[in-house]
Amino acid sequence: MCSVIGVFGNKNASRLVSSGLFATQHRGQEATGISAMNNKKINTRKKLGLVSSVFRHDGHFDTIQGDVAIGHNRYSTAGGNSILDAQPIQANFELGTMSIVHNGNLIDKDEVRKRLISEGAIFQSKMDTENLIHLIAKSKHKKMEERIIEAVRSVKGAYCFLIINDNKMYAIRDKYGIRPFSIAKLKDGGYMVASETCAFDLVDADYIRDVEPGEMVIFDNKNGMKSTTLYEKEYRPCAFEYIYFARPDSIIDGKSIYESRIDMGKTLAKESQIKADVVIPVPDSGVPSAIGYSKESGIPFELGIIRNHYVGRTFIEPNQNVRAAKVKQKLSAMKNVIQGKSVVVIDDSIVRGTTSKIIVQMIRKAGAKEVHFKVSSPPVKFPCYYGIDTPEKKDLIHSDMNTEEVRKYLNVDSLEYLSMDGLIDSIGTKRNYALESFNGDYFI
Amino acid sequence: MCSVIGVFGNKNASRLVSSGLFATQHRGQEATGISAMNNKKINTRKKLGLVSSVFRHDGHFDTIQGDVAIGHNRYSTAGGNSILDAQPIQANFELGTMSIVHNGNLIDKDEVRKRLISEGAIFQSKMDTENLIHLIAKSKHKKMEERIIEAVRSVKGAYCFLIINDNKMYAIRDKYGIRPFSIAKLKDGGYMVASETCAFDLVDADYIRDVEPGEMVIFDNKNGMKSTTLYEKEYRPCAFEYIYFARPDSIIDGKSIYESRIDMGKTLAKESQIKADVVIPVPDSGVPSAIGYSKESGIPFELGIIRNHYVGRTFIEPNQNVRAAKVKQKLSAMKNVIQGKSVVVIDDSIVRGTTSKIIVQMIRKAGAKEVHFKVSSPPVKFPCYYGIDTPEKKDLIHSDMNTEEVRKYLNVDSLEYLSMDGLIDSIGTKRNYALESFNGDYFI
Amino acid sequence: MCSVIGVFGNKNASRLVSSGLFATQHRGQEATGISAMNNKKINTRKKLGLVSSVFRHDGHFDTIQGDVAIGHNRYSTAGGNSILDAQPIQANFELGTMSIVHNGNLIDKDEVRKRLISEGAIFQSKMDTENLIHLIAKSKHKKMEERIIEAVRSVKGAYCFLIINDNKMYAIRDKYGIRPFSIAKLKDGGYMVASETCAFDLVDADYIRDVEPGEMVIFDNKNGMKSTTLYEKEYRPCAFEYIYFARPDSIIDGKSIYESRIDMGKTLAKESQIKADVVIPVPDSGVPSAIGYSKESGIPFELGIIRNHYVGRTFIEPNQNVRAAKVKQKLSAMKNVIQGKSVVVIDDSIVRGTTSKIIVQMIRKAGAKEVHFKVSSPPVKFPCYYGIDTPEKKDLIHSDMNTEEVRKYLNVDSLEYLSMDGLIDSIGTKRNYALESFNGDYFI
Amino acid sequence: MCSVIGVFGNKNASRLVSSGLFATQHRGQEATGISAMNNKKINTRKKLGLVSSVFRHDGHFDTIQGDVAIGHNRYSTAGGNSILDAQPIQANFELGTMSIVHNGNLIDKDEVRKRLISEGAIFQSKMDTENLIHLIAKSKHKKMEERIIEAVRSVKGAYCFLIINDNKMYAIRDKYGIRPFSIAKLKDGGYMVASETCAFDLVDADYIRDVEPGEMVIFDNKNGMKSTTLYEKEYRPCAFEYIYFARPDSIIDGKSIYESRIDMGKTLAKESQIKADVVIPVPDSGVPSAIGYSKESGIPFELGIIRNHYVGRTFIEPNQNVRAAKVKQKLSAMKNVIQGKSVVVIDDSIVRGTTSKIIVQMIRKAGAKEVHFKVSSPPVKFPCYYGIDTPEKKDLIHSDMNTEEVRKYLNVDSLEYLSMDGLIDSIGTKRNYALESFNGDYFI
Repeated sequence: MCSVIGVFGNKNASRLVSSGLFATQHRGQEATGISAMNNKKINTRKKLGLVSSVFRHDGHFDTIQGDVAIGHNRYSTAGGNSILDAQPIQANFELGTMSIVHNGNLIDKDEVRKRLISEGAIFQSKMDTENLIHLIAKSKHKKMEERIIEAVRSVKGAYCFLIINDNKMYAIRDKYGIRPFSIAKLKDGGYMVASETCAFDLVDADYIRDVEPGEMVIFDNKNGMKSTTLYEKEYRPCAFEYIYFARPDSIIDGKSIYESRIDMGKTLAKESQIKADVVIPVPDSGVPSAIGYSKESGIPFELGIIRNHYVGRTFIEPNQNVRAAKVKQKLSAMKNVIQGKSVVVIDDSIVRGTTSKIIVQMIRKAGAKEVHFKVSSPPVKFPCYYGIDTPEKKDLIHSDMNTEEVRKYLNVDSLEYLSMDGLIDSIGTKRNYALESFNGDYFI
Repeated sequence: MCSVIGVFGNKNASRLVSSGLFATQHRGQEATGISAMNNKKINTRKKLGLVSSVFRHDGHFDTIQGDVAIGHNRYSTAGGNSILDAQPIQANFELGTMSIVHNGNLIDKDEVRKRLISEGAIFQSKMDTENLIHLIAKSKHKKMEERIIEAVRSVKGAYCFLIINDNKMYAIRDKYGIRPFSIAKLKDGGYMVASETCAFDLVDADYIRDVEPGEMVIFDNKNGMKSTTLYEKEYRPCAFEYIYFARPDSIIDGKSIYESRIDMGKTLAKESQIKADVVIPVPDSGVPSAIGYSKESGIPFELGIIRNHYVGRTFIEPNQNVRAAKVKQKLSAMKNVIQGKSVVVIDDSIVRGTTSKIIVQMIRKAGAKEVHFKVSSPPVKFPCYYGIDTPEKKDLIHSDMNTEEVRKYLNVDSLEYLSMDGLIDSIGTKRNYALESFNGDYFI
Repeated sequence: MCSVIGVFGNKNASRLVSSGLFATQHRGQEATGISAMNNKKINTRKKLGLVSSVFRHDGHFDTIQGDVAIGHNRYSTAGGNSILDAQPIQANFELGTMSIVHNGNLIDKDEVRKRLISEGAIFQSKMDTENLIHLIAKSKHKKMEERIIEAVRSVKGAYCFLIINDNKMYAIRDKYGIRPFSIAKLKDGGYMVASETCAFDLVDADYIRDVEPGEMVIFDNKNGMKSTTLYEKEYRPCAFEYIYFARPDSIIDGKSIYESRIDMGKTLAKESQIKADVVIPVPDSGVPSAIGYSKESGIPFELGIIRNHYVGRTFIEPNQNVRAAKVKQKLSAMKNVIQGKSVVVIDDSIVRGTTSKIIVQMIRKAGAKEVHFKVSSPPVKFPCYYGIDTPEKKDLIHSDMNTEEVRKYLNVDSLEYLSMDGLIDSIGTKRNYALESFNGDYFI
Repeated sequence: MCSVIGVFGNKNASRLVSSGLFATQHRGQEATGISAMNNKKINTRKKLGLVSSVFRHDGHFDTIQGDVAIGHNRYSTAGGNSILDAQPIQANFELGTMSIVHNGNLIDKDEVRKRLISEGAIFQSKMDTENLIHLIAKSKHKKMEERIIEAVRSVKGAYCFLIINDNKMYAIRDKYGIRPFSIAKLKDGGYMVASETCAFDLVDADYIRDVEPGEMVIFDNKNGMKSTTLYEKEYRPCAFEYIYFARPDSIIDGKSIYESRIDMGKTLAKESQIKADVVIPVPDSGVPSAIGYSKESGIPFELGIIRNHYVGRTFIEPNQNVRAAKVKQKLSAMKNVIQGKSVVVIDDSIVRGTTSKIIVQMIRKAGAKEVHFKVSSPPVKFPCYYGIDTPEKKDLIHSDMNTEEVRKYLNVDSLEYLSMDGLIDSIGTKRNYALESFNGDYFI
């Protein structure tokens, strides 16, 4: 998942990047870092932890001064909580120093890495981002721009890169535009590029446009913003950004995330009508869909599950199953809302099924008469290789169970998913989406 | 504000108390601490910070073993972020060692402190809790029970005390029952006492009953729970617990907090009808009232303001007014929901007015056609001295402005408050409430 | 053990106190704290840890501004590593706020505490310092000065107190002058009082004189320094300050600590002559005596044991006895100096004997032909109750072994101690010393 | 400077390496790290800070299990306090994963780096160690052994490398043997390799022999230790290891560091006779030479300067010049030893001269009649490029001042240095030493 932020041409570049990272903290909480460029020299500060602790006071910005900066929030993945895997990655190469951040996933990373290694390259991290640095460094082109083009053209996958070198900043997006990537103008000078538009709102920057699929935008002091097309675009944005990953106040390709979710809930209500007393969301990501479901179905919306926002990483209940304990620390069912009622529960997706099962137990224990589980997306049957951290196929509950089997496993009275068409209609425009988690269509 | 938790007769007493404190973290985030009693010996661990960091791992419980424990979450008040003002307070006195925690406020604390000081007592903190310890220690009674009774009878105010000494635990609530205080039975033995029932849910404890106003409940190994009436009860619970302070999944005196808030929203809608396109809450505490308002008025409910839950204490935006920056970090307005609309904004209360003003600016900037501000409680005109941390009178916007003046200050098209009767009706049963912040009726 | 520092009449009072605490860190490493007084208002900052971490940057002094300040280094004692037992202790009482620090030990603390408790006092720490606060607070006198006199006269023991209240600072020393306590003039205004004169050197303060045994010195803005005699003095300074506790560059009662130790070594050489190849100290405290021994005996001085100064508290060797591991981490024997030699080892004292035994093993392993252990003080047979943290009698190796038995236990060829007369001669002037650890003469 | 430690064939490999790092902490305090290999898989933990804090508890070893491990202490150099510059460096390459640590300095690092970069390599740190990794990775040889040989042969400088890969550990030392590098046998199985022999003493390992200049020792499970000669040896060990860098209890090439220093002091006394009352060392490194000087000259040895070992990095005196403040915090002159005396001060070297000047001021202020400064090494006129962190030429006081000018600058009555011959004689055997700091003979 992750988020990337870049600022070009503002003396507060690092501060502004830290604000953008703060606004997009939901995309990654494991580690964060910023590289700043001052007259071609680049310095990097990166650390495990949240933005609000890693960039907490003025002193934290002392070493990262300059008018160009890029930053990264890292999503926690299994076994990867090492400082070695934090971004940006800064490296010296033939054209000086560069630093790079990446949101996405290069699907051919293992092959490319193998090839690079066979040519004598070394890899100091597990990050595919390191591949791109090597490709840029090994290119025989004289100009950075041409090196980047050559490097990017030799990798496959979903990506949004920000690269800084020699007083320029490069923003590159894959031809499918799988991950969101937008550009804004800062009020006091310069540009911001961000994984989500919510970053712009926090710093009062004015959204200009998206980095186009297949486009490289180069920021330099002479030309400002210059566009180069690397690929003909074949726009297929990730449906999961709309379903649960992006912040509700972000706008991707002109469509509000919040509205998409409202519409998913409405469509779900049209598709799977039921008689019930109350609609409750699994907070926080299920809330908009539940509102939509309620609007369409007329079944009253209530907060039937409360979320405790003080949950830390490591606080463990005594004498309990750890996962159940964590869910219970985070969520609690409202007896007054649920007791004796026929309840429609709305969640955005079911992945492993374990958390959903615990939530259903909570709701049952709170006295629900009936539990109808509605999911505002189709069943997840395939892992995502385009930048969403889904488990392997075998851990997906729908990889070997059908809906009826999952219904029994969850112990609910009914279980229904938004249809693929319903999903596409809800997001809105008649485009192709990246839907590989639902249909296995790995188009890259 | 604050919360107190006690566990009696369970070998995991400290662990269970830490869970209760975790569940009631919303009542105080400045400092937390636990005293545990093991065969009359008491040890205390307390520290500035959240429960999830102060009691993070097994080692943190090493020194607080025993089958009786009490704990406290401290609310941050101006200038009081010192470890000296963290609870529990443990003290040696004539009957051995005691430890005490307190939720509430002793209104005669300065006089009592002055008197005690004139008698030679010393005070090592600013906490009124220290008063009670002195009164107990100075009592000439031989039995702890009688000492506590004498001490409690000589103070005035809103209080819920938990005291441990000599293998017993004492729970005492003032005669008005201003702060909530409930008792549950633990499944694997022993009792839990807590400021809010949500603590019971997290540890699967079964609610038995409330500590009655004016009651002292004594827990000991011989008799289990024993009740003593210190005062005839004159029940006047704090309306603010219902309005915004308690967790929505808690139940006070049999009434669900969540339902009370839904009902406040409904009543508000009845009282102040308006034509508008959308109802939006100020999250998180305004959400239930906004749902209620929507239900009653038929105006659609939407999440028009998004809350970022990663906000830390000290993360500061560059180049901005600090308070506005903090509000912007925490909240952002949804242009898609608001633009061109006539918006009803629901908040639970207006105290200083500064945050509300910034929120209105956000909503205006997002393009609202009209902004109608509705508050699910009456205007706060007087400071609370019964345990809610309100500012002094001069800082309350309604201390010297009338509604029309505040409306202009906030720059809204209309401003309406729930009436006092509406508030009372919404909470529900026909009782007296503590309403001094609204009407200045300081009944103690 | 501990150290206390006070500064009166200098706007950098807290900073200067922190420097004094830093210079006397050898007297206590467990916790440190400072109270500063600004126009009668007192604020305290105290924490577990070294001075250099607790008062590390400017921000740490923000809350402790004022022109009067007192501070304390706490020595780590068994089970007492709680923030509750850190000093200064600040308290509100009839005459406002006072804060107090204490170096020494009140031998009647349990009786006084018991009496105070029976009169209704509460004790929030294990520190005897709290006794004095209560006694001052309970006094019926109107003036602080008289209250302090009454309080001090009602306790027994070894003590150096610094008390601040009402823009005055009080320095009080017991009539035996057991612990050192000196006064200096600061170059840029005001006074410093300190447990050891090495504190003055660090801040360039000019030593004036000692606080006399039985004297109270009052510092106030009108009179500067004013002296009151509480007791006729019967000077009996603690011999252990000279033997190992004070810093070698400090001067107590006009006698250099370093010179005293040199002289102890010389006297030891006169008393216990032996033929040997080399004299080696147990570092660091044994070094001066070993130099003295070498001078007198003519046997060459060498560093036969090296000390590693990076030893932290908790770093544990794998697979080893913990104490032996700690000694090995700290000390290592020099094979080249020791091998095949007849070695005289000089240490300042033997308390439990366990460390000495491990040191002897090291020396034997390094190939010593003969090991002659010489101790620059008499055998420690009795616990100290006057402020040195010695173990209980049963843990003193000399409580039930004679010298020959200890010699066998240590596995050395000879073992000799400085005689009592030799000790007295070495310190110098013909005074009475506090020698209770050697002869059981508990004169208080 | 730095130190490297390796353990092969012991299940406690990481623990033992941490002990070795602890024993050699004096060689580097900025950062520390360990890589452990378990069945060819390598994991690394590295962090800024002392060994005793980075490897403080069992949990810190969780990720670095295995029976082979290497570790590194990093010396703090200007501007280099970044985690990016901590070692070991772990990298994936064609033959799997390797990790490497390095003590020394590759003098041709910039050229090699430039060449590697021109061939497409990227550099993520400022460390020359990264050069070697690239050279190994780029080698066309099939076997690791041959790759290492090729790589090492293509670099110049002073080096001791430890490399792990594929269940083998490689120890390589440059042909001059500039830095020390020794091998020991562990009592419970396996080998330890260390920068200094003091590491062996702490873990009770038995010294076997040094890694020979120009030798590569390969440790594997089949053959144990296998030796390969990469270069004909031309032994020229660094004189500075003997003068001040190594720990006094270490032995380099059979010669005790302590004894070398004693002998330097003796030779200095022979060369520069003077009449004086007392010889005092600048602690800690000047102590052995001062003892030697005293022995030879008959002038009494005294501790005239006391060192405070609690000095932290950042504790700053108020209102003082920072460097002077730091020296004063660390050192204090003993008036009783110095006053009215003609004093010989012994230090191991004078580099910038600033600290020496402050020390002389201290001694003068303590009342010395005469100050004779004697240095147990020749004047430092040239920077060291072989692994000792000396300042640039312009910052060396002797780069443009002669002895008489430095004498005046320091304000001493006489200033004398050990002659080059005297130094060579004192270290002992008639070998060539690396003396480039004194004579500019950059032989590599």
